[in-house]
Amino acid sequence: MFEVFESTESQVRSYCRKYPVVFSKAKNSEIFSVDGERYIDFLAVAGSMNYGHNNPEIKAKIMEYLSEDHIINALDMYTDAKEEFLLTFNEKILKPRNLNYKVMCCGPTGTNAVEAALKLARKNTGRTNVVAFSGAFHGMTLGSLAMTTDRTSREGASVPLTNVTFMPYDNSRLDSIAYLKWILEDDHSGIEKPAAICLETLQAEGGINVASVEWLQEIRKICTEHDIIMICDDIQVGNGRTGYFFSFERAGIQPDMVVLSKSISGFGTPMALLLMRPELDIFRPAEHNGTFRGNQLSFIGGTAAINYFVEHHLDEEVQKKAVIVEKFIQEEILPLDSRLSYRGMGLMWGIDFTEINPALALEAVHEGFERHLIMEVAGRKDAVLKLMPPLTVPEDILREGLAIVKASVEAALK
Amino acid sequence: MFEVFESTESQVRSYCRKYPVVFSKAKNSEIFSVDGERYIDFLAVAGSMNYGHNNPEIKAKIMEYLSEDHIINALDMYTDAKEEFLLTFNEKILKPRNLNYKVMCCGPTGTNAVEAALKLARKNTGRTNVVAFSGAFHGMTLGSLAMTTDRTSREGASVPLTNVTFMPYDNSRLDSIAYLKWILEDDHSGIEKPAAICLETLQAEGGINVASVEWLQEIRKICTEHDIIMICDDIQVGNGRTGYFFSFERAGIQPDMVVLSKSISGFGTPMALLLMRPELDIFRPAEHNGTFRGNQLSFIGGTAAINYFVEHHLDEEVQKKAVIVEKFIQEEILPLDSRLSYRGMGLMWGIDFTEINPALALEAVHEGFERHLIMEVAGRKDAVLKLMPPLTVPEDILREGLAIVKASVEAALK
Amino acid sequence: MFEVFESTESQVRSYCRKYPVVFSKAKNSEIFSVDGERYIDFLAVAGSMNYGHNNPEIKAKIMEYLSEDHIINALDMYTDAKEEFLLTFNEKILKPRNLNYKVMCCGPTGTNAVEAALKLARKNTGRTNVVAFSGAFHGMTLGSLAMTTDRTSREGASVPLTNVTFMPYDNSRLDSIAYLKWILEDDHSGIEKPAAICLETLQAEGGINVASVEWLQEIRKICTEHDIIMICDDIQVGNGRTGYFFSFERAGIQPDMVVLSKSISGFGTPMALLLMRPELDIFRPAEHNGTFRGNQLSFIGGTAAINYFVEHHLDEEVQKKAVIVEKFIQEEILPLDSRLSYRGMGLMWGIDFTEINPALALEAVHEGFERHLIMEVAGRKDAVLKLMPPLTVPEDILREGLAIVKASVEAALK
Amino acid sequence: MFEVFESTESQVRSYCRKYPVVFSKAKNSEIFSVDGERYIDFLAVAGSMNYGHNNPEIKAKIMEYLSEDHIINALDMYTDAKEEFLLTFNEKILKPRNLNYKVMCCGPTGTNAVEAALKLARKNTGRTNVVAFSGAFHGMTLGSLAMTTDRTSREGASVPLTNVTFMPYDNSRLDSIAYLKWILEDDHSGIEKPAAICLETLQAEGGINVASVEWLQEIRKICTEHDIIMICDDIQVGNGRTGYFFSFERAGIQPDMVVLSKSISGFGTPMALLLMRPELDIFRPAEHNGTFRGNQLSFIGGTAAINYFVEHHLDEEVQKKAVIVEKFIQEEILPLDSRLSYRGMGLMWGIDFTEINPALALEAVHEGFERHLIMEVAGRKDAVLKLMPPLTVPEDILREGLAIVKASVEAALK
Repeated sequence: MFEVFESTESQVRSYCRKYPVVFSKAKNSEIFSVDGERYIDFLAVAGSMNYGHNNPEIKAKIMEYLSEDHIINALDMYTDAKEEFLLTFNEKILKPRNLNYKVMCCGPTGTNAVEAALKLARKNTGRTNVVAFSGAFHGMTLGSLAMTTDRTSREGASVPLTNVTFMPYDNSRLDSIAYLKWILEDDHSGIEKPAAICLETLQAEGGINVASVEWLQEIRKICTEHDIIMICDDIQVGNGRTGYFFSFERAGIQPDMVVLSKSISGFGTPMALLLMRPELDIFRPAEHNGTFRGNQLSFIGGTAAINYFVEHHLDEEVQKKAVIVEKFIQEEILPLDSRLSYRGMGLMWGIDFTEINPALALEAVHEGFERHLIMEVAGRKDAVLKLMPPLTVPEDILREGLAIVKASVEAALK
Repeated sequence: MFEVFESTESQVRSYCRKYPVVFSKAKNSEIFSVDGERYIDFLAVAGSMNYGHNNPEIKAKIMEYLSEDHIINALDMYTDAKEEFLLTFNEKILKPRNLNYKVMCCGPTGTNAVEAALKLARKNTGRTNVVAFSGAFHGMTLGSLAMTTDRTSREGASVPLTNVTFMPYDNSRLDSIAYLKWILEDDHSGIEKPAAICLETLQAEGGINVASVEWLQEIRKICTEHDIIMICDDIQVGNGRTGYFFSFERAGIQPDMVVLSKSISGFGTPMALLLMRPELDIFRPAEHNGTFRGNQLSFIGGTAAINYFVEHHLDEEVQKKAVIVEKFIQEEILPLDSRLSYRGMGLMWGIDFTEINPALALEAVHEGFERHLIMEVAGRKDAVLKLMPPLTVPEDILREGLAIVKASVEAALK
Repeated sequence: MFEVFESTESQVRSYCRKYPVVFSKAKNSEIFSVDGERYIDFLAVAGSMNYGHNNPEIKAKIMEYLSEDHIINALDMYTDAKEEFLLTFNEKILKPRNLNYKVMCCGPTGTNAVEAALKLARKNTGRTNVVAFSGAFHGMTLGSLAMTTDRTSREGASVPLTNVTFMPYDNSRLDSIAYLKWILEDDHSGIEKPAAICLETLQAEGGINVASVEWLQEIRKICTEHDIIMICDDIQVGNGRTGYFFSFERAGIQPDMVVLSKSISGFGTPMALLLMRPELDIFRPAEHNGTFRGNQLSFIGGTAAINYFVEHHLDEEVQKKAVIVEKFIQEEILPLDSRLSYRGMGLMWGIDFTEINPALALEAVHEGFERHLIMEVAGRKDAVLKLMPPLTVPEDILREGLAIVKASVEAALK
Repeated sequence: MFEVFESTESQVRSYCRKYPVVFSKAKNSEIFSVDGERYIDFLAVAGSMNYGHNNPEIKAKIMEYLSEDHIINALDMYTDAKEEFLLTFNEKILKPRNLNYKVMCCGPTGTNAVEAALKLARKNTGRTNVVAFSGAFHGMTLGSLAMTTDRTSREGASVPLTNVTFMPYDNSRLDSIAYLKWILEDDHSGIEKPAAICLETLQAEGGINVASVEWLQEIRKICTEHDIIMICDDIQVGNGRTGYFFSFERAGIQPDMVVLSKSISGFGTPMALLLMRPELDIFRPAEHNGTFRGNQLSFIGGTAAINYFVEHHLDEEVQKKAVIVEKFIQEEILPLDSRLSYRGMGLMWGIDFTEINPALALEAVHEGFERHLIMEVAGRKDAVLKLMPPLTVPEDILREGLAIVKASVEAALK
């Protein structure tokens, strides 16, 4: 059944090993195999389908655009599609949050925008070192990979990954703020002052680790005091995932740069943005470029997605659903084994099997798939079962999925 | 008129400065501004629209796919869209050329696939150094950027770019083969044996530099003898651009890895592939990954594009048009000034103003744009006027465009 | 008076700025200017004259060797002078301490032996990263400098200093053991497992920071458990300086490698050794070499110095003098200002002015020099007044010097 | 007989494997084993005994200095011994050659001075890259090692050696000047403009490769035109070895920096100097330092050696002896096999066995040692038999040694 893939596709393929079926269609929070089998989607294509598969309001705009022979790729030439996106993003997302950022349309992968952020932070400060945190995942190209922490990904580089200093993330047993202050204040620390501190406010791949508001505010304060650029990687946890459009809103802080990708296009088409405080925008023309930085379908989808987000008050929706999920985990999942723990917010939650047996998380994924639920694992030793449905998941399907989570965890625990 | 862009978009934007108009629609080799002004396209969106804007045969497949609520992004899960693409690519492109490659679907930017190639080459050989050539352009993320040569792009990194040894490209006054042999055969060269030699058979950004068949064969031979992986970056010059599907076909060689992007999706939607000899496929699952590596619209478009390529004998088409262009340059352009020279093949040609005044190339672009022709510059000091229409350009529009080229060069020379 | 130096010598010169006089002769703990002025030496030529200037027992051997036209430099050829040194070092230093090390005669600078240690640790483990500590000083060539922490020295490199991870040294407010365990045990720390942990048990240049016995034992335990090579840099604090021949003896531990230099030759002539556990000795012949690794006068002096050390029970001598110095500091210096603090052991002590005004330490040096006492500063902001006489300083001169220290501190505090 | 060495010394030892005897005494160009066996010295301790072992004029000064209890090590404090050396070096070496350099007393190894030169060149230019040449040997610490070319030495680092671009040395089949110009003039070369070009005018370890006067002048011109610092490593070929005090005198050029070591102390005691054009002397105090940079015996010996050099017209002596050696090689050695070739000048000569069998050079060394002559091999595959007696070798001993060379080559060829 999978022979074409097995014989012609690189063995680097990965998700297909967890979900051994050929998919074909998808609608909101459901995915269908070529055989018409229905699967509930608690993965949201790694966070790139926050607005649901084939969201009709977004899709209508895409179809309309296509039907009129509009330009599809336009590099960084001016187009009406981009103009409308920029306007909408500025008026409906940035301004209401008192944010003032310039927008850079990067190559359409999150890692590309992270690389752009690193270039710009280093250029602005004349420093090369950047601080990143244990558990971080920022991408797989060499610049971003240097800030990505899992050993397998790093070893894949086969070259030294440099110019990054790692610190423990919040919630560990180590006082990372004290450590950070040390390297900044001790001129015998041996560590160069960083150009930037780059972080996720909630580490997704790292195992659903939620930084505290206090910690985030402290980092912001340190950056300001020491003239360090604060970069927030909101690739996976932006676009409403945490119950806010930007994940950092809950801490009341403003990063100096923000990286967006995944769901920013609204429709699953590739897109990535770097937001930067205007005074940091010192790029020379084309100093960072890429062929697909003008993927017009993504501008069209992105505009429609913003309108959808605002009109449907998706942030509030998410916060309501968060209560459902957390309550379910507390009342139905945790009682299954006292060694289980959980973390999360918005519509990203993790159930941690570390204290029992890390391998059970993947076991639960397999059990879930047999029950037609798509989930993923994350974190150290892949010990965390990760739940991340589209934000638009209807409540009944959400509850149906949660019931399968319970059944899957139960089965895994046996 | 451009105030939205100027106030909200990063100053990194670049092409828009050469073509100060807001574009909206596009059809085959013509692009239209929001005001309905028509422009002939001799840029082909940096080589990503080889099959023409909104190619009807490709677009029909895209529309059909969309209309049925198929999945849009699927990571590296199995889908019927990907299956068909892999089959088609294998049967209609690889097999007829006696090529046996496994396909890796990378993050949808050329630079991402280049980074994957570098990782895999280094992993296979246990070596870190790679050889690249003067004039090369392989992308803007840190791994690829280390092989990219123009000073501005490199300085943008603001960190050292390492693990690459540069050699002069073919056609320079330096014997790069002798130099290459020296570093491989002299154990006091100080230079580590490379994991890979990475090249473009025709350097596009580097200034339309065509490597000779002999040189390419010699490189292939050296790679084989020294157990070095030959990587061909066919991002811009693959997909029929040179009159062959793969640019290396003219040399009768088979690289160990091939990188494809830009026009591989057929429709301008983002996509990038790494092809590798099967025995090199030693990746661990997810060792290189990315959210948008399963952009289904691109699989759909890519399949349609391959069919289009084969059915319309696009390679032969290109070779016919090449004769038209070269003849025009020889008979109409070169006589304008004896110091002009030209290079190129297929439908990528460069007119070199170096001997007169490098700045005249950009001047010709401006003159062209005033005459409603979109062209670009390339190479050292941007001295080369680059002509690269969609491969599907009708002969009459091709001739119309060439006439504008002549007028623009004339105007620039004044 | 100094015009020859000022006009012909590089401005990099440094100590001469603190002691503006031309020196000529020296005997035990006294140095004399060309004008016959006498200075008490509380610097011991940065720890290279532990056995006193022109120690008569050592000097007699040197003179005897010279008088007989023995070979002076012999690379790593076999000589009777080296043979006797190796035998003596083994029998009288290593064996009585149950230490089993092979000896490598390095280029005659401490930094050269540190570089050899790094090479060997990396070669043995196949890892590149090493851990060093805040406040560390290991030398000025590029490999050692990467482990040296003060910002000025590091900036002098003008290239990135890589392959080192820094951790806070003991006695800071940060739990460096916890941090060390974190990077070793968290496979998402982002930090590569180190080949080695390199440390001084008492940081001299770093500001007379004494690591606790418990901390040193914990490091030893971690190295053993994680198969990491423990390197002890005993360049400045070995050779009896702390009251033991090796500084690590007080912790009852055995490093895997030990670096010795400075006083190891006994007579002030250049010499540096790397000691290594025999099973780590996997160097290829000449894999690390240098012209002056066979400086025979240093072997002669070194043998005589070991004999002197043993016969005069210099370690016990030092411990007795340590009591004198510490008592004096406690009773005479600290009362001068309640914000003064002190640290040290053996015959290396520091008086810390940080809480008052870091600049006062250098002021005290100047005051001391006016009173004909030679002292140095160390540590962050040079805030620590460093007292380090030859170990052979007679008690009366030691007390004479201490009285000047008191007077100088008093004067500086005014 | 060698059991002490074998059981206690690191296996890194190397020369002792070629000369398996324990040495004890040495006089001018003869060395004596502990058993009183006499060996003729055609190695000169790797060029550190240019003035002969135990040169009586130099030794007298050393003994006198020692007998008066002068200071032995003094860091970079002012001493009368250093003052006299600086004066003598300036008056008798620099001024007569119209050279104006400031002198930096480095840690007493050649590699230490090379590292200082690199730091200063990079600091002056703000660039990190330096150019070095195939065949180069500049030392074994990480900065110098990055410019050293033989694979074994480089692999010993076990970390990447960076910030150096290699070019073929003169006399190769490659036009290194053209290549050098290319990287400087092509802004798409991919190679950063270097801070410095570092070279030996005659590569000793590299295999007795003599750069032509034209090539050296061309390099000097390129450095001047492009504001690149020219560093001449005269560690092995300075101090009269080539028939001039500085090896670059024959080309009539003045490098911007010169590194001296080995024979500069005259007596075999460790010493290293960096000479720099005064305007390049922008070091901060102690920005590069080291404990043994004030090895007074070396200042005493160095002064005496300069006086010896001048009074005995050692440069002319060397040029006379050069004729003897070259004539002997041409008339007596080359006829032994038509595939032998030779290179050299002054009193450094190489007989090249590459065309016969590289291993024969080492074979000749063994044959020589059996005949009581000490020689060394050099170059690629150690194929070059290297002849380098003290410059003071008496003519009869020189001829005696040459006769043994002939016998040894004959024996090896059998």
